Amino acid sequence: MIAKASIASQFKLIKKLVRIDSRSFSSTLSTQEPPEPRVVTHSVPGPRSVQMIKELNALQQTGAIQLFIDFEKSFGNYICDVDGNVFLDIYSQISSIPLGYNHPALVAAVKDSKNFSSFINRPALGVLPNKEFIEQIKSSLMLVSPNGLPEIQTMACGSCSVENALKTACIWYQTKQRDGKPPSEGIFESSMINQPPGSPKLSIISFKGGFHGRTFGALSCTHSKPIHKLDIPAFEWPIATFPLYKYPLEENERENKAIDKKCIEHIEDLIEQFNKKGVPVAALIVEPIQGEGGDNHGSAYFFKEIRRVTSKNGIAFVCDEVQTGGGATGRFWAHEHWSLQTPPDIVTFSKKMLTGGFFYRPEFRPDAPYRIFNTWMGDPAKMVLLSAAIEVILKEKLVEKIRETGDYLLENLKQTEKRYSHLVEKARGKGTFAAIDFKTPQLQATAIKKLHLHGIHCGGSGKQTLRIRTTLTFNKKHVDIFVDRLNKVLSEM
Amino acid sequence: MIAKASIASQFKLIKKLVRIDSRSFSSTLSTQEPPEPRVVTHSVPGPRSVQMIKELNALQQTGAIQLFIDFEKSFGNYICDVDGNVFLDIYSQISSIPLGYNHPALVAAVKDSKNFSSFINRPALGVLPNKEFIEQIKSSLMLVSPNGLPEIQTMACGSCSVENALKTACIWYQTKQRDGKPPSEGIFESSMINQPPGSPKLSIISFKGGFHGRTFGALSCTHSKPIHKLDIPAFEWPIATFPLYKYPLEENERENKAIDKKCIEHIEDLIEQFNKKGVPVAALIVEPIQGEGGDNHGSAYFFKEIRRVTSKNGIAFVCDEVQTGGGATGRFWAHEHWSLQTPPDIVTFSKKMLTGGFFYRPEFRPDAPYRIFNTWMGDPAKMVLLSAAIEVILKEKLVEKIRETGDYLLENLKQTEKRYSHLVEKARGKGTFAAIDFKTPQLQATAIKKLHLHGIHCGGSGKQTLRIRTTLTFNKKHVDIFVDRLNKVLSEM
Repeated sequence: MIAKASIASQFKLIKKLVRIDSRSFSSTLSTQEPPEPRVVTHSVPGPRSVQMIKELNALQQTGAIQLFIDFEKSFGNYICDVDGNVFLDIYSQISSIPLGYNHPALVAAVKDSKNFSSFINRPALGVLPNKEFIEQIKSSLMLVSPNGLPEIQTMACGSCSVENALKTACIWYQTKQRDGKPPSEGIFESSMINQPPGSPKLSIISFKGGFHGRTFGALSCTHSKPIHKLDIPAFEWPIATFPLYKYPLEENERENKAIDKKCIEHIEDLIEQFNKKGVPVAALIVEPIQGEGGDNHGSAYFFKEIRRVTSKNGIAFVCDEVQTGGGATGRFWAHEHWSLQTPPDIVTFSKKMLTGGFFYRPEFRPDAPYRIFNTWMGDPAKMVLLSAAIEVILKEKLVEKIRETGDYLLENLKQTEKRYSHLVEKARGKGTFAAIDFKTPQLQATAIKKLHLHGIHCGGSGKQTLRIRTTLTFNKKHVDIFVDRLNKVLSEM
Repeated sequence: MIAKASIASQFKLIKKLVRIDSRSFSSTLSTQEPPEPRVVTHSVPGPRSVQMIKELNALQQTGAIQLFIDFEKSFGNYICDVDGNVFLDIYSQISSIPLGYNHPALVAAVKDSKNFSSFINRPALGVLPNKEFIEQIKSSLMLVSPNGLPEIQTMACGSCSVENALKTACIWYQTKQRDGKPPSEGIFESSMINQPPGSPKLSIISFKGGFHGRTFGALSCTHSKPIHKLDIPAFEWPIATFPLYKYPLEENERENKAIDKKCIEHIEDLIEQFNKKGVPVAALIVEPIQGEGGDNHGSAYFFKEIRRVTSKNGIAFVCDEVQTGGGATGRFWAHEHWSLQTPPDIVTFSKKMLTGGFFYRPEFRPDAPYRIFNTWMGDPAKMVLLSAAIEVILKEKLVEKIRETGDYLLENLKQTEKRYSHLVEKARGKGTFAAIDFKTPQLQATAIKKLHLHGIHCGGSGKQTLRIRTTLTFNKKHVDIFVDRLNKVLSEM
């Protein structure tokens, strides 16, 4: 992560930081958090949550609802439900809480009268941005923009970010095909009836096990679970194989490198095959770690090869950091772990970044207005919160701290794996973006239920994975509590 | 609009309303608004906006930006830019401001400490809703839910609402094809690779001139302007003809009915044609008034026929009220103007509703969790604002008032049309959701520029239309100012 702000605005930030109480927010947080989880009901969800689920069920499908949450009573890494249960939260609203609940910096941002207008009056940012918008971008997103990606487009959510990143890639690809010349009238006309050449036959490569959202374009790139996709028409785009390594990694280097090579060959085959079919590949979209598909990690070698192959073929490399971005992997952006010579062309974000959006290389800027556009295009209310969050993240070096916490967590998970090797395997992670697999899907389901009863709020991914998605204020004390409860649960199984 | 809340919760609402100062917010608003627009720069945008556009242009494409706005200084129906220009706003952030800028009820909602948590802690609503969520829905969306559509799904924005409404329709359609039986393992597997039968070949009917958003699915249904669609792959779905009537309507009833009939026949042909092709039509999506495509109104007869044809063919009728919903047409939902016997199956909303989402008939509820799902699925922060806005809308009968204001506006526009019949035509509207056409696209562009200089912030639609999109507190006084400036501009042309 490299700060991209001008020296003047950096200086302004530093002055602002100095004004903050020298005692860091996170240490405040630590003393105000509950000492440990506490489950007071005999079952989870408790009776009050069950009652409320029933009530909401009169209005909508509620089959996925786990608990109703008392967010006012939740604090830091602890979440409190309406039955008075207090859980240590290692799921953080599907990985979308950067600093913990009711973080003092965010509370202060909401109470600050100078921010009221951003919460009340939502602009159409593409035509009439608020006067604070440039400063809001510079004091948040541009302070953490990935190396080599100096341009930014905000969006409202993760799916919209992915959809618009893919559109940006298609626009870039087709503009190249026209040698930058303006399209003819016939091209415009054909686009109006969804026909080529205006609506071109282009394809996007995605990966088995990948997840990029659930709108029609993003969903065509999503292949993690059938329940996401069933009954929805999809684009017939190429689907590549994501490497699934043998663990432990250090004992299987040769085999895993061979897996990488086979996956890269598959990508090259697909590019050739789809180009020949007349549906050329405009972009490849990939997660640094497949988050929903079961915490599948690709090696730095694999991603360097993706950068090489996409560059060679003139294909946009879209790195989807909606789940991995924001620091939990121990780098602000997970793709920084790979030390690429040339960065991905587009990096999407959302979740922990509170606003959606994407960074991109300057050559990907659309050549005309209104091509990447919608009514809101983001939300200053979220920018206010994000500025406050990023100030804390940078000042308190939370990404560096999460790297240490992550090492400690992984060490502990590996010990658990050794101790309960008949139940769990493949402890893995970067930062606290970590996971461990159960031997069967049934064991996963049982363990998650039991962990809830032991005061750990957590969720699964893939078929038999426990995914750990903490806030950036998660520390060794929290690791100890989680690992203790996990071991208890495993000892009961 | 029919209130759907239980008697208990209605009673609670009434008690709450009584507590509010008897002087209505809107009358407060009227006295605090500037008396009239005031443009102090020689050109619009003024020098400060121009400078800020240049600054932001270092970070992103800014070709569509008109002005930077000082939202703190904006009030009611008046918007203030960073150069100190004060405009009467008849565009309201692309139709997305319900009550005007800094409305006291919304200011109060943001300042109320009981709402802080909803602004700070964004839940994953599909799994861990906030304890206030049911009440937030009941005190906002369910108070204005369309007749016959008692179920609700919130979403983050308009495009996501449309995408998920179309997905809901596809799920409903395919579930019917299976006679409600669970899908076989093979169906699941095929969905994972974007192939039928799991990812079925289904199509959605949309209309020439229609606009439903810009994500891949919604964009495949959008046909208003090529710049939205150029270079983006699209589903080859059927595109029907939207009626384009002869004006004045009262003199062309017979011709216009014939146009309606021809359009309906076209829809029936398309259904037959696509069914035969093996790409059956699962849904039809239509705007009550084509908002982006040039303010094209369909008749009640046309939409009754759509309901008849979709019901007969077992096709979902999706009514996209993202732009028309929320009261500006003089009914809370524009489709209420048609007096349908059976409501549309799904009604989408966003913009003025502050949150996205859709209402639907109970038979459209997905049969399993996680089928319509994403990380956020809406935002309690927006529900807080919406509850406050709807309380004002209902208490102050703003929809009824906008109907009167709209009649007055249309009367005035028709007079202007008579007076400047060489320049303008086809004055039309429902409520203040109104429009007038210029004789050429050039005249439209010139007039909009001149209106800006005369202190009216406005925008176009279609090729040569001036679209009027006011807040719900727009009144006759505002109409007088707008019409006066419009006449001045036309007299200069």
